[in-house]
Amino acid sequence: MSKVRYGMVGGGEGAFIGAVHRTAAAIAGNWDLVAGAFSSTPDKARRSAAEIGVARGYDSWQDMLAKEASLPADRRIHVVSIVTPNFLHAPVAIAAMEAGFDVVCDKPVADTLEAARAIADAATRTGRRIAITHTYTGYPLVKQARDLVAGAGAVRRVMVKYTQDWLSRAADLENNKQAAWRVDPNRSGEGGAIGDIGTHAFNLVEFITGRRVKSLCAELGSLPGRSLDDDASALLRLEGGGRGMLACSQVCVGDANDLAISVYCDELGLHWRQEEPNSLRVGRRDRPEEIWHAGSNRAYLAPAIRAIQRTPGGHPEGYMEAFANIYHAFGQEVLTGKRAAGAPGYATLEDAIACMKFIHAAKKSSDADAAWIDLTTL
Amino acid sequence: MSKVRYGMVGGGEGAFIGAVHRTAAAIAGNWDLVAGAFSSTPDKARRSAAEIGVARGYDSWQDMLAKEASLPADRRIHVVSIVTPNFLHAPVAIAAMEAGFDVVCDKPVADTLEAARAIADAATRTGRRIAITHTYTGYPLVKQARDLVAGAGAVRRVMVKYTQDWLSRAADLENNKQAAWRVDPNRSGEGGAIGDIGTHAFNLVEFITGRRVKSLCAELGSLPGRSLDDDASALLRLEGGGRGMLACSQVCVGDANDLAISVYCDELGLHWRQEEPNSLRVGRRDRPEEIWHAGSNRAYLAPAIRAIQRTPGGHPEGYMEAFANIYHAFGQEVLTGKRAAGAPGYATLEDAIACMKFIHAAKKSSDADAAWIDLTTL
Amino acid sequence: MSKVRYGMVGGGEGAFIGAVHRTAAAIAGNWDLVAGAFSSTPDKARRSAAEIGVARGYDSWQDMLAKEASLPADRRIHVVSIVTPNFLHAPVAIAAMEAGFDVVCDKPVADTLEAARAIADAATRTGRRIAITHTYTGYPLVKQARDLVAGAGAVRRVMVKYTQDWLSRAADLENNKQAAWRVDPNRSGEGGAIGDIGTHAFNLVEFITGRRVKSLCAELGSLPGRSLDDDASALLRLEGGGRGMLACSQVCVGDANDLAISVYCDELGLHWRQEEPNSLRVGRRDRPEEIWHAGSNRAYLAPAIRAIQRTPGGHPEGYMEAFANIYHAFGQEVLTGKRAAGAPGYATLEDAIACMKFIHAAKKSSDADAAWIDLTTL
Amino acid sequence: MSKVRYGMVGGGEGAFIGAVHRTAAAIAGNWDLVAGAFSSTPDKARRSAAEIGVARGYDSWQDMLAKEASLPADRRIHVVSIVTPNFLHAPVAIAAMEAGFDVVCDKPVADTLEAARAIADAATRTGRRIAITHTYTGYPLVKQARDLVAGAGAVRRVMVKYTQDWLSRAADLENNKQAAWRVDPNRSGEGGAIGDIGTHAFNLVEFITGRRVKSLCAELGSLPGRSLDDDASALLRLEGGGRGMLACSQVCVGDANDLAISVYCDELGLHWRQEEPNSLRVGRRDRPEEIWHAGSNRAYLAPAIRAIQRTPGGHPEGYMEAFANIYHAFGQEVLTGKRAAGAPGYATLEDAIACMKFIHAAKKSSDADAAWIDLTTL
Repeated sequence: MSKVRYGMVGGGEGAFIGAVHRTAAAIAGNWDLVAGAFSSTPDKARRSAAEIGVARGYDSWQDMLAKEASLPADRRIHVVSIVTPNFLHAPVAIAAMEAGFDVVCDKPVADTLEAARAIADAATRTGRRIAITHTYTGYPLVKQARDLVAGAGAVRRVMVKYTQDWLSRAADLENNKQAAWRVDPNRSGEGGAIGDIGTHAFNLVEFITGRRVKSLCAELGSLPGRSLDDDASALLRLEGGGRGMLACSQVCVGDANDLAISVYCDELGLHWRQEEPNSLRVGRRDRPEEIWHAGSNRAYLAPAIRAIQRTPGGHPEGYMEAFANIYHAFGQEVLTGKRAAGAPGYATLEDAIACMKFIHAAKKSSDADAAWIDLTTL
Repeated sequence: MSKVRYGMVGGGEGAFIGAVHRTAAAIAGNWDLVAGAFSSTPDKARRSAAEIGVARGYDSWQDMLAKEASLPADRRIHVVSIVTPNFLHAPVAIAAMEAGFDVVCDKPVADTLEAARAIADAATRTGRRIAITHTYTGYPLVKQARDLVAGAGAVRRVMVKYTQDWLSRAADLENNKQAAWRVDPNRSGEGGAIGDIGTHAFNLVEFITGRRVKSLCAELGSLPGRSLDDDASALLRLEGGGRGMLACSQVCVGDANDLAISVYCDELGLHWRQEEPNSLRVGRRDRPEEIWHAGSNRAYLAPAIRAIQRTPGGHPEGYMEAFANIYHAFGQEVLTGKRAAGAPGYATLEDAIACMKFIHAAKKSSDADAAWIDLTTL
Repeated sequence: MSKVRYGMVGGGEGAFIGAVHRTAAAIAGNWDLVAGAFSSTPDKARRSAAEIGVARGYDSWQDMLAKEASLPADRRIHVVSIVTPNFLHAPVAIAAMEAGFDVVCDKPVADTLEAARAIADAATRTGRRIAITHTYTGYPLVKQARDLVAGAGAVRRVMVKYTQDWLSRAADLENNKQAAWRVDPNRSGEGGAIGDIGTHAFNLVEFITGRRVKSLCAELGSLPGRSLDDDASALLRLEGGGRGMLACSQVCVGDANDLAISVYCDELGLHWRQEEPNSLRVGRRDRPEEIWHAGSNRAYLAPAIRAIQRTPGGHPEGYMEAFANIYHAFGQEVLTGKRAAGAPGYATLEDAIACMKFIHAAKKSSDADAAWIDLTTL
Repeated sequence: MSKVRYGMVGGGEGAFIGAVHRTAAAIAGNWDLVAGAFSSTPDKARRSAAEIGVARGYDSWQDMLAKEASLPADRRIHVVSIVTPNFLHAPVAIAAMEAGFDVVCDKPVADTLEAARAIADAATRTGRRIAITHTYTGYPLVKQARDLVAGAGAVRRVMVKYTQDWLSRAADLENNKQAAWRVDPNRSGEGGAIGDIGTHAFNLVEFITGRRVKSLCAELGSLPGRSLDDDASALLRLEGGGRGMLACSQVCVGDANDLAISVYCDELGLHWRQEEPNSLRVGRRDRPEEIWHAGSNRAYLAPAIRAIQRTPGGHPEGYMEAFANIYHAFGQEVLTGKRAAGAPGYATLEDAIACMKFIHAAKKSSDADAAWIDLTTL
């Protein structure tokens, strides 16, 4: 079995999401990590490469792009995986594509809407592929939810929430590398919680309903002394009809990573919660409630959804496997040039730009006392 | 043990909530149903009285008030219980108070804000008591939630939803007595779902947080051809700070009576759901999640909350018992002239008028494209 | 509507289950409590009658039976409700039937198998009716479970547990009236936990499967210094095939009243838990799991099961309503002479004698190192 | 970071558990798969090696052992991972240890108690290490459960069940490679369900309680025409006191992989279920119930348990990560020669032999009408 060779930018000592990407790629099974510029500090970059066990450790991402591009085709990387703070996504992604590499990029795709559009331009110009890792759409039952909604008539109402408590105390910003860049507008972008987790919630709405959000009104807030939002509420209107509500917060005491969504259509209502990702609750009028369970052997799941699971029912898969599904799908596409059938395997640039519009619109609406903002004209 | 003698208005053949009130009063144990004008149709009123087994059945509520008032003090009713469609609440309540009776009234207290204020005037003028049956605040763990919030610092975020599906099909309005008056503005008032169930959600927010909602913006909707809303979303701002979201809908397929609330404070987050009312989930930072369970013998519950329960832990109480708690608390007050200690036992006129403002403001906001409406100046 | 007039024996000051019976009868709506001998101490009996508000309070149950029997037919009680400690069930029940009254008796029906058989003889001799209040079979979804099992092929496996923690500390026997008689063989009978709660678990197995238990092996235990069992485990064999396991314990720390059952048949597996009684989980091969919900309007429930519920889906009923269902069914039978269609509305003497055999066999098996005991030859 | 080089025996085309082992080792991160004899059919073995991407594919395990042993120390494998049907475990494990390799072996460790003891003899003789992959003890919260029980006084009662439905139809044995060898006594051993899944349940009891099972009585059963058990019930007695019940079945319709355990001690009761492995329910007398959640950042978990998790709370880990924890712990021991602190990282031969005694005793007891069998004298 041939594998995708990839190089990572970011993800060295003290980082969180880089290790997740590497484990996800290992589970996917069709990726080989062969290069990396794991830190913007050369010393740290080298130490991290040694620790991770990657032979081709580079001092900087510029160095990596240049040197990899000069390797013979059967040795050089196919893909650059970007796991840096948000403000570096665009420069690295654009340079990578221009150097001839496909890209995997952590979300949100950029720090500003403009930067995201610059990536899109680069993709068009270079013809390279890019996948954005909106992890939660990698869960099999999220894909099944999308399938169910597609056959259930009009979407009436969507309610999504994503709540955490890791920033719930004023002191949480101190001595926390993860927090530090996320709450710094220069490194994170104009959104705080709305960028970090609100975009996941937003993307989940669009993924499951198969529709874009047309407009929204929002109210952001934060604990005293913070420059970026840590809490937000929004009303949403979907293209093609349907109303929604979105909440995201990083100051909701007691909640760890509580992303939960309910979608109501003409024919059914469905409910999924990330912390128990292997079941999907489906309600229908005058019928017993149904719990759909994950598992490679569940005859009632769509074949393409069964196929991406590693274990039969009752053997729980988790966050890492959802992430691995994204890597696997994009990897197969890189290797074969063909996109797999069924629900999308990863978030596209178009999806990611919709998320950037969400951040921008939410901020703008909140500044205007929760006025409606039209996303279609941003 | 002496008991409160009461007469009922409404609640005859084909009615739903009247029978609930009667069962609740029977469970409470300190009430005797001795009179009734169970229908606006005299024949039906008489048939219903016989069926229910009430000796003093009257042809009309006017008749009941007049004749009961002329009975000796040790025989006549103390309280009139009003379980008619909304538009009759105010005329009956006002007349009952003027005839010297205390009142129990189903919610919402009236069809319009003006009517509710007229009841308040009557109460002030006559010095009579009135309880409005916001059932869900009768649950022991809702009272415990209020106690917990009171000691948990600032309220940060409230999320409440109340979803049903009994009007989810266009045809649901036909041949359904319950639906018929609820969706008729002349009998129900200006609110559809917001009046019927939104007020419960709203009242629950105010009860648990111990705060009034200061302002809101809302968006109402309905299936084609309906004159009143059957679905609503709102953003809330609380007095003293704290933001909230409220959703209510009677077209959410698969949901029966799904009232659920989350309240996040500085020190904890708590979660309660009406369909499983005997547990209350409490999250705290860096501590195992706690599930508080109902039961008369739960040492960790407040004494006043233990005292209103009929059975020890693990013997579930339900909707009827929550309702009975309201009757019991008001009944004791009627009998003794004293309000019980602890969390309020029933919704007051002030609470009920806040609900009427909610209906009015939600409608007004929705008509103005979800503009913010200040409830304090209504 | 005519009602059943009843007199209660036991259930005065400090008692628990008597108040439950009275509330259940009030909810049922077809009963009138008109007489009572609420304590074996005349003073207490009189005080209790006054407190409860019953005009015909008697000093002793003998007195009640004699005097009620001499009243005219349209005033005297129809039924005697027995809520005393177990050892008094048989004498009161037999005397009541001989005095011409039907009987409701709390479970277990007697303190010994012999006493239970004496009641059966009396019933045959006098032609009187008797209902034993195995509360948990009064839940609508337990009846639905029975219906589902009846159509699901052979029963393969049953697992039932009933665990509490109210006797989990050595000191729990002191100063607790409820505990005192339950752990005294002279008042409770030969079974401790197996009699008090094991019989409920056993009866639930027989009710849902529609089969008698044929034989069992059991092991009983207790904390040091206790004369009766407080913990038991058993293997069961059912008539017609099918194996089972039963556990009951009153020393399981953290459990309140945790009665839970799983029944597996050829075509499905079902799961019900008393602490969340309004849902029934049903698993089938290669199909989404189903959650059946209680509610008078649930089209998928059997009509007879819908008919006994007081509220539509999502308005939880609890322990009291389950109890009320038993009173209602037996009351209608007393009034009309006809048994209602559908699943049995109450436990019969035959059911109750099976429970007494269970107690006896479990004790006997445990004394013989968990040897198999044949219940059919007891 | 240096890694453990390993070779796999079994796990080629059409196999299930081999792929699980490989993914687990990849997640663990401290293993390199460098060799394999993936099938007993040389053709298939070679095809599988190519497909999996392993350079040193061998035609037989004998071949692999011989050739690997002759490689230089810095190239040859450290460990042989055995994922064959049960009857091959002992010959391969013994030969591997004799050839100088440590061993990872899937459970149960052998097909017979005698074979297991022969492995133990070989381990003693050669001084090699061996880990048996009882997956479920790899879950972080199972380790936490063990810690909690260790500090909670005497163990009173254990209830464990492990139910599946993949053999619930007579036809399930046909055309299913997984089923075929598992129900064939020549390849599986004397236990059917008791060997395949009962041993997991049994091992979980011993792991969490920290005690061996002293004796048991059991009853096995199977659908008509099957030579091995597919369903079993047992009563257990623990060393040091405490009683238990164990059920395992592969014919329980609707259940996928439902391993669930409750352990009651003097001070608490705890409850864990494999299908929702990231929460652990803990009950204490007179205290709110606690839900302990998994997560690398949960301050209340033991440090050694936090350390093995890859993600903070709310990012669910699953079956693969539990498996990876076993590989990781054993791998570190192989690399460093030191066992990690805290709860055991993998099942030892002693644990595995206890499981073999369980299979043997359950069969023997069932043949003697559920007589008690003493495991300590087997």
